[in-house]
Amino acid sequence: MSSGRFITFEGGEGVGKSTQARMLADILRARGLGVLLTREPGGTPGAEAIRTLLLDKQYDWDARAEALLFAAARSDHVNHAIRPALDRGDWVVCDRFIDSSRAYQAGGSDLSDDAILSMHTIGSHALMPDVTFLLYAETDDVAARLAARDGDETDRIGGRSAPYHARVAARFRDLAAMDPERFVLIDASGTMDIVHERVWRAIAPLLGEGG
Amino acid sequence: MSSGRFITFEGGEGVGKSTQARMLADILRARGLGVLLTREPGGTPGAEAIRTLLLDKQYDWDARAEALLFAAARSDHVNHAIRPALDRGDWVVCDRFIDSSRAYQAGGSDLSDDAILSMHTIGSHALMPDVTFLLYAETDDVAARLAARDGDETDRIGGRSAPYHARVAARFRDLAAMDPERFVLIDASGTMDIVHERVWRAIAPLLGEGG
Repeated sequence: MSSGRFITFEGGEGVGKSTQARMLADILRARGLGVLLTREPGGTPGAEAIRTLLLDKQYDWDARAEALLFAAARSDHVNHAIRPALDRGDWVVCDRFIDSSRAYQAGGSDLSDDAILSMHTIGSHALMPDVTFLLYAETDDVAARLAARDGDETDRIGGRSAPYHARVAARFRDLAAMDPERFVLIDASGTMDIVHERVWRAIAPLLGEGG
Repeated sequence: MSSGRFITFEGGEGVGKSTQARMLADILRARGLGVLLTREPGGTPGAEAIRTLLLDKQYDWDARAEALLFAAARSDHVNHAIRPALDRGDWVVCDRFIDSSRAYQAGGSDLSDDAILSMHTIGSHALMPDVTFLLYAETDDVAARLAARDGDETDRIGGRSAPYHARVAARFRDLAAMDPERFVLIDASGTMDIVHERVWRAIAPLLGEGG
């Protein structure tokens, strides 16, 4: 039996990361594999408490405090959930991870990528995913998906300006170009089943199944 | 009129840092100076919220997450309170600052001093105090003061073992030895007025008054 892999889903708001992460976890479990399906910021009680602080509009976090809080939440998540799951041989499927910090905190401020990675080294021994799916979609599709969500899901970060989100998207593409071995670009247009099929094509070979 | 200075009080639990910080702030205000009296972790609404998380016994923070949370709280405190006060020309008197992280997080774990300082550079542009008072006392005196406090003030960090606190005290002495220009060692034995007199002797010359 193959040992588990660490898979992350990245991309902007509303591209379907959570749905695709869940669908991948389901198909892995259906094959009898142990799977931890998780998300960031969050994933442990401590990290969820930090997530609540991060998204709360009453606090005026600047980019530097925000980046340190994300790194603290990730440290708790890695050391208390992700690393133990991988050590058991389970798969880990995570909705957002270090690349979100690299795109949102470094891409949207004067913080360098080196600064983000040094916090990740301090907090999480620089743990990197085996495979990262970067989901991308046309802006109009995303706006339609976000509008279709129930309730007011706009938070401190999701509610930022269009130019901010454009810089973040460009930064994600740069990260993928810098690390083509790890990143798999996924066209997020079409139904969730069609997108899932694109994701599965990249994972199946890792299980010895046809792509 | 002289511009403000940034003064910190450091040392273990129960040596009288809060009392001495308040007495110094009072005497500076009595001379007509603008003074921000503050403390760490805390000092701003965001940093106080992080303080609540840090001291809450329900979370099992390890040394790495804890160090990142302290750095995040300090970043908010520096950028939203300490730096603006210094820019106005006010004095800032702070109960604990970066040296507490260097003594407690680096002294009590495998984190290096460089790691603590790099987080301080990222979060707070490496702001350092002009003068740091290191209060030291015999262990028996401290135990008596802690026992005399009202209620149960033992928290996640204060409640740690005696060897942990001994390592922290040794680490404070090392920091003071490494930076004798900034540190002033203060014997914390005797009444609060006697200790205050020792503190004042180091500050008065900065105001052009006799020591």
